[in-house]
Amino acid sequence: MMKKVGVAILGVGVVGGGTFQTLTEHREFYRQTQNVDIVVESVLDNNRARAMSIGVPEEILASSIAEVVTNPAVDIVVETIGGCGVAKDFILAALNEGKTVVTANKELISKHWHDLERAAKRNSCGLYFEASCVGGVPIIRTLLDGVQANRITHMMGIVNGTTNYILTQMTQSGAEYADALKEAQRLGYAEFDPTADVDGFDATYKLSILSSMAFHTKVPYTKIFREGIREVSSKDIAFGKELGYTLKLLAIGKNTEKGIEVRVHPTFIPSSHPLASVNDSYNAVFLTGDAVEDVMLYGRGAGSLPTSSAVVGDVIFAATHSDIKYSTFKNTATADPKTKFVTNFESAYYIRLLVEDKAGVLAKLTGIFAKYGVSIVEIAQKGEGENGRLPLIIFTHKTAENSVKNVVAKINASDLASVQSVIRVEA
Amino acid sequence: MMKKVGVAILGVGVVGGGTFQTLTEHREFYRQTQNVDIVVESVLDNNRARAMSIGVPEEILASSIAEVVTNPAVDIVVETIGGCGVAKDFILAALNEGKTVVTANKELISKHWHDLERAAKRNSCGLYFEASCVGGVPIIRTLLDGVQANRITHMMGIVNGTTNYILTQMTQSGAEYADALKEAQRLGYAEFDPTADVDGFDATYKLSILSSMAFHTKVPYTKIFREGIREVSSKDIAFGKELGYTLKLLAIGKNTEKGIEVRVHPTFIPSSHPLASVNDSYNAVFLTGDAVEDVMLYGRGAGSLPTSSAVVGDVIFAATHSDIKYSTFKNTATADPKTKFVTNFESAYYIRLLVEDKAGVLAKLTGIFAKYGVSIVEIAQKGEGENGRLPLIIFTHKTAENSVKNVVAKINASDLASVQSVIRVEA
Repeated sequence: MMKKVGVAILGVGVVGGGTFQTLTEHREFYRQTQNVDIVVESVLDNNRARAMSIGVPEEILASSIAEVVTNPAVDIVVETIGGCGVAKDFILAALNEGKTVVTANKELISKHWHDLERAAKRNSCGLYFEASCVGGVPIIRTLLDGVQANRITHMMGIVNGTTNYILTQMTQSGAEYADALKEAQRLGYAEFDPTADVDGFDATYKLSILSSMAFHTKVPYTKIFREGIREVSSKDIAFGKELGYTLKLLAIGKNTEKGIEVRVHPTFIPSSHPLASVNDSYNAVFLTGDAVEDVMLYGRGAGSLPTSSAVVGDVIFAATHSDIKYSTFKNTATADPKTKFVTNFESAYYIRLLVEDKAGVLAKLTGIFAKYGVSIVEIAQKGEGENGRLPLIIFTHKTAENSVKNVVAKINASDLASVQSVIRVEA
Repeated sequence: MMKKVGVAILGVGVVGGGTFQTLTEHREFYRQTQNVDIVVESVLDNNRARAMSIGVPEEILASSIAEVVTNPAVDIVVETIGGCGVAKDFILAALNEGKTVVTANKELISKHWHDLERAAKRNSCGLYFEASCVGGVPIIRTLLDGVQANRITHMMGIVNGTTNYILTQMTQSGAEYADALKEAQRLGYAEFDPTADVDGFDATYKLSILSSMAFHTKVPYTKIFREGIREVSSKDIAFGKELGYTLKLLAIGKNTEKGIEVRVHPTFIPSSHPLASVNDSYNAVFLTGDAVEDVMLYGRGAGSLPTSSAVVGDVIFAATHSDIKYSTFKNTATADPKTKFVTNFESAYYIRLLVEDKAGVLAKLTGIFAKYGVSIVEIAQKGEGENGRLPLIIFTHKTAENSVKNVVAKINASDLASVQSVIRVEA
């Protein structure tokens, strides 16, 4: 007889609604291809009218979380509410009743994974969160069961669709940040309050999850250097483009002898790099492992049905596997004291300046770079001057972040030049 | 106590040697991250001296397959011999002794998957073959446990590193096929007899495996339309490039209402398509599913260590999961009689002609296209004429393959023009 598996969905908004649609429309398909009958047995949503409008039958609409988690027909609870409010309590309630949990909640997993996993282990339940990172792209499964033979040394990802849409607009049409943001808001790609996306918080949650898994040690999101895209100027994007670089908000993780280095910031990458052509709301993660070399996964980073593909993928995995794989490291609230984090990281830099047009100024400027051990690759004059000052772009060799900060402070304190922008460059 | 798992490796050439290296160098790493102690207990290779030269201890060198498969310390047998000779017998011997098998053998899986799977099921053993397709890229795991929530409708892959290297050379340096092949042979990217790669056989084996999994029905490699790259001219590559197209040897699978359509042939794709920038020996598979939309996986399609990443990934999966997932359809030697295969498929076409330079010829030519219902998108004059004939390139709308064949035959039988090349175009 075919195995029957009951699912409850908590929250049928964008992702939960897509999950309901995918599960119901594909029920017969999963019976045929996965040999399992997956049935939505229960839905919980404050907005009962909305739930019914997307086709949820009234008789499976629950009126409390207790009703959902004590329902013996429910084997798997899908959490698509989001945030760190009731979502956490609901997941813990489900796990404590012995239900396996599938969640799309990056903020919750990044902040409370250890609590949730402890509860899951105690109750011998599964805890799945493929949908928390990079939408429909199976990056979590790949880290667990695809590239697990490797020591992952590098990870670079475009993991936020909103900012990638905005930067793509700025790159392709030369729009300024404020206008591109407005357009993203109009299209529903950006929230009314865009802070979580444009200031890079969303990307740090995802990088925390992905780098913890890739490097087999807890990487709290609070350890991640974070700089958003609010200050990005279309001028720098255009200059970079001319010089062969594309600007992306990258989530970068490195695991080297010096320790773990994790950062989210606007980054120039060579326009020939596979990540450079990941545009609009597409996302991608580029991994380097000691056996596999480079691997990239690319796809929709958000959206109702693409994200439901990841949620339902987890539901099917849980329904068809009895083994449960938890994190591959001691999952605690804070980082392992033995894990070293690199804060004064090294990067190459793009620095745009307005420089006094006088004899000897350039020698003095390059003297400041030399003093702090920052070596220059290229100096280019680009764009229009201002107030008699010349526009200059300097690319540096790989150098320590703190050295560049010192150079910038020294220049700005001088009457030689003023620094207009500083953008990190990755090869 | 930590679980101990014994592995045997059959054949320590390029992939088997990489597997031995990856397993031995990472043993402590897997103990820490996967909570399993994976030990190479046995190696079988005709060339004992070669095996010892890569560090295989003499005491684990077996002298017969019987010695390997009856060794109680061996739980998993890795087959990295290749081909359909002894590899099949050895795998069956291992399965019949209750050993789980991990293989990198695309030809064997594409031709004898049903036999091997039947033996695996009968003995309750696992049969894993991630390394058979696209080297280190976890495409098999993704189809099984990543995008399984989707009906996959389209698949396009660059799945052969040799031909992609040759076509990249022809594209970037304008080299002719024969010279690019010689260079690939010199670098070890192509065999002395390059038939399996350049005539597209290798790609059909992989497409057979991938499309069977994606479409949940047996797609024998013999059902795949196949055209290799021997006849590709650098002239067409250059003209395509000017017109915004890049030439790749694509493995294409479609699952539509009309049936299943599978083909391997040189294909023009828009240069902005993510597959167009997959160069040299890199491979990639681009999937479209009804929930996830587009997903692409990219990485090294071959090579010792990259492929070992897939082999060892399977070994770890087998060592840490007790559930076994077989094919998601009735796996038989031949196609399910209910499966319809589309042979007269539709495509857009690039057709290069040499045309008589006389009044009225163009009208007569376009008349032939119209007669067979082939509608023209664009006509461009490109390149040098020959013997007083003008060079012309015609792009068609999507049309049936047979109609284009009729047009070409009719033109070549006329004294109006001669067809120099016909290349299919995918959007």
